[in-house]
Order: sequence, then structure tokens, then C-alpha cells
Amino acid sequence: MNVNLDCVPCFMQQALKTARIATDDERKQEEILRETAGLLNRVSYECTPPEIAHQVHEIVRRISGNEDPYREVKLHDNKLALDLYPWLKQQVRKSDDPLYTAVKLAVAGNIIDYGVNQSFNVEETIERVLGMDFALDAMDEFRKDLAKAEEIYYLADNAGEIVFDRVLIDEFKNKRIILVVKGGPIINDATMEDVETAGLSDKVDVDYMGNGMPGTGPERTDPLFLQKLRDADLVLSKGQGNFEGLNEQDYIYFLLMAKCPLIARHIGVEVGDIVFTRGFRR
Amino acid sequence: MNVNLDCVPCFMQQALKTARIATDDERKQEEILRETAGLLNRVSYECTPPEIAHQVHEIVRRISGNEDPYREVKLHDNKLALDLYPWLKQQVRKSDDPLYTAVKLAVAGNIIDYGVNQSFNVEETIERVLGMDFALDAMDEFRKDLAKAEEIYYLADNAGEIVFDRVLIDEFKNKRIILVVKGGPIINDATMEDVETAGLSDKVDVDYMGNGMPGTGPERTDPLFLQKLRDADLVLSKGQGNFEGLNEQDYIYFLLMAKCPLIARHIGVEVGDIVFTRGFRR
Repeated sequence: MNVNLDCVPCFMQQALKTARIATDDERKQEEILRETAGLLNRVSYECTPPEIAHQVHEIVRRISGNEDPYREVKLHDNKLALDLYPWLKQQVRKSDDPLYTAVKLAVAGNIIDYGVNQSFNVEETIERVLGMDFALDAMDEFRKDLAKAEEIYYLADNAGEIVFDRVLIDEFKNKRIILVVKGGPIINDATMEDVETAGLSDKVDVDYMGNGMPGTGPERTDPLFLQKLRDADLVLSKGQGNFEGLNEQDYIYFLLMAKCPLIARHIGVEVGDIVFTRGFRR
Repeated sequence: MNVNLDCVPCFMQQALKTARIATDDERKQEEILRETAGLLNRVSYECTPPEIAHQVHEIVRRISGNEDPYREVKLHDNKLALDLYPWLKQQVRKSDDPLYTAVKLAVAGNIIDYGVNQSFNVEETIERVLGMDFALDAMDEFRKDLAKAEEIYYLADNAGEIVFDRVLIDEFKNKRIILVVKGGPIINDATMEDVETAGLSDKVDVDYMGNGMPGTGPERTDPLFLQKLRDADLVLSKGQGNFEGLNEQDYIYFLLMAKCPLIARHIGVEVGDIVFTRGFRR
């Protein structure tokens, strides 16, 4: 998906939100907003939203001097999810369809935005998701492709959520898993540190995607990265950012909650729907 | 109130919303967003939000070539309000406290955003407002000042709403009313055309405030304009924009619904509350 004009004010909101997490210095917050406005004045919109988001977060890091603004949020989210892990495993064990339950839990991990509201009842929210139907449900097709696959590329989304991903990865028996995380901090996206915290480092191989900084890995749209995905037996992608970058790749399974109205409209679902679909061109 | 950092992404949203109303040409919409971003990159934030909003709308007018993007919205809103006028007068007539009912109707006119949702039941919404209590209620004080006043400055807000203002102005018996509207189009703010449409031109004298363009009148913060207000027997101000520009003038009565979270926080009320208060310093 390319940047839509609706994304442009949203980049400003992201800049302000992240600036306030990164620094308490209001002059630096203002400088971040001004530089983001300067970027949006001149940057090409012929790219995907995450590519501009990377540049916005580069501005936040540079001006605030805070290399990883969401570090505390990520630590908190991982801890909360790890505390839930035994209960999550129990949900899978007692299910008539453990794989489907694990897929639902993986999307539930995408829904729960720990950093935002810490007081809600997490288990209640997860049970609500387990009771929801996918607005698009590729489960039957996915089961068949999974049975044939030896090697699975799994594109992770956020910290915390990655513990839910572990529950699903546990159900991929006797497969080689290549877990793709960010090669450097960007918002609350999972990095190598979160792979370790989630207890996944001896269960998966890790590959990296970039965060807009040199040396942190290729962008999602990098031709060599795409070739790797195309050559894989199966690709499972979590979250909106990966969908925005890769939505036309019809060999990829996307698992996400539609939170952004543009993404929801593009997929043809409502905001708040959970979606399990292969990529497609519109 | 000075521009807060939260206003900055909001200016971008306003630019996009107005750009889409002003022109169907997506290249021009993009150009408007880019120029607004450039403005927000360099403009001083040491001013009130309406002063920057004026510059944003100047960009929209210049690039779209549309001098009055909200013209259709204003015509529609006036018509809807005029159709209601007999019913509004009836509400005042049957009230035990006609002045207070007219004040409530004037704030109800500020709540109903006709352009946004045309299908809702307007009378039901107005009756709901008539049943609401003001979060801050300066009515007793206002009554006393009104009794002594010979000359009232009435700062209007939007088209459509101005018909509700007429209902209140009808209750100001034997006073000279100076109705202040915009000297040129800006969003859906009332102008001289709306004064005429609302049937107010033979009931009031009219004065002008600027819309950011030369010759459209002084800004709210202009010293000579403020002197006029200070010299008046009574000043009644409608809506958020006037509050943002004049909130520290303690001789002004402000009548508004708190729609913006920053304004609500500044006043010390919740978003959605209706407010009748004199100006104050925080």
C-alpha cells in the first residue's frame, strides 16, 4: 500500500506521541514536530507508510538522543505476556482445534496494546478474541500449506505479542522457523532482545528487517528480501505494518487486526475486525 | 490560549479535511498538505490556534482556487436552522425562563455540526441540550450585567448556528447589538451573508473580524478590537475559536461546547460539556 493523504496527519500524531515518550523536554518535542513537518513537506509519498514512519522515528531518535524510546514499554509488555504464557498454553491444550486456537491467540496478541491501557482485564480480552470470527478466514488453505511446508518465514510484529507468537510457533511441529524481527528499535516492534526474552532463541532462526537506520537490515520492499520470502515454503506475517509493506504478495498469509481505517477499507472489512488472508492486488 | 503541540497534527487534519471540501483534484490536495507541513515547519507557535488556522485556510484557498470551500455547507446549515426557527421560538415562548432557554438554544446551535451528519434528529438533539446542565454556569451574573447593559457585543461563530443566535438576540429587548462576524470566508464561520440569511440585518449592527486575509478585519487579538470589546457594556462570545483567542479577557462571557480536549482541560471540564463562563487566566 502506498502512502495515502490520510497518513500524512497521522505521521504528525505518531511523531508527537513518540517524541513525548522519548523525552520530557518540550523544546525537543517541538523540534521533532517541526522537523517531521519539514520531512512531510518534501518527502515523496510514492512509498509505503512504514518507510516514512522509519524516517519520522529517525528524527525522534536523533533529536531526543533516545535510541530506543519504547524500551520500557517493550519490557513491560513482554513481562505481562510472559505471565500469561502458561494460561495461553492451557487454552491451546484444552482446545478441540489447537492450531486454530493458537492462530487466534496470535491475533489476540496483536490486539492487546499493553502500553496504552494497563488496567484492563487481559484474559477477558483474549477470551473475547477467541470467540470472534475472522472477517476473512484463510485457515483451511493455511492448514494444507502448513502440512507441506518444511521451512516457515514468520514476520513478527511487536514485543509482548511475540510471546503469543511463541504459542503459535510451538504448534508448528518439526518445521524450521525463520523469525524475522527488526534489526534495531522502532516503536514497540520486536527485536532480537524480545526473541530472547520470549524464550524463542533456541526454537527459531532469526532474520532481520530494517528500521530505517543503516545496518539494521533491508526494508520489507527490498528485492533480495522479497526473493527470500518468495522462495520460502510458507510465509506468515503479523500486524498492519507488514501488511502495508507486503500486501500485494499473494504467497504471504497475513494475520492482523484492522486498526487503521485505510487498511480496513483496503481489505474490505470494518475497523476492529480480525483478518487472516493471503495477499492480493486491489 | 497559545498553540499547544497537540494542535500541530490537528492543523494537518484540518488542512486535509478542508482541501477535500475545496477541490476534487488529488494533486492539489497533496500540494495543500505539503504547503501546510512547510508552514508548520517554520511558523512561530507563539500565537493562538486560530491565527495558524487562518494561514492554513489561506493555503487551501490559494492552491484550490476555491475562495469559499464551505459555501455549500453554510447554505445547507442556514436552511436547516431556518426551518427550525419557528420551533425554536416556540421552545422559548413555552419556557418558564425564556432567557435561559434562549441561552441553552444558542449553545445547542454550537453543538449541532450540520455539515457532518445530516440524517440525525435535530429536534431530539436540541431537546437533549435543553435538558443538560452547564458544567460552568454564569447565568445569574449574566442576567445582572444584561439588565444594566445598553450595548452588547455578540461574537458569532458558525453559519446555521447564527439562526440560533437570533433566537437569543430576540430576547435582548431594547439593546443595541453589535454582531461580530468574519469579514471573509473561513471554514463555516458566519459572514455578512449569513447575517442577512438569518434575518438579522435589521436587528443588529455588524462589525468584522479577520480571516487571515487583508481587508477582512482585525484578528481577535488586535489591540484596537480588544479596546472596543473592553469599552462595551457586555460581551457575549460563541464557540471555541473565540475562546482560544480571547479566553483571558475576564469581562467576556463565553458560551460554548467543549469539543477539543485541550480546551476542555484548560477550562476544567469534560469533552462534550456545555460551558457558560467569564474569561479567566490559568
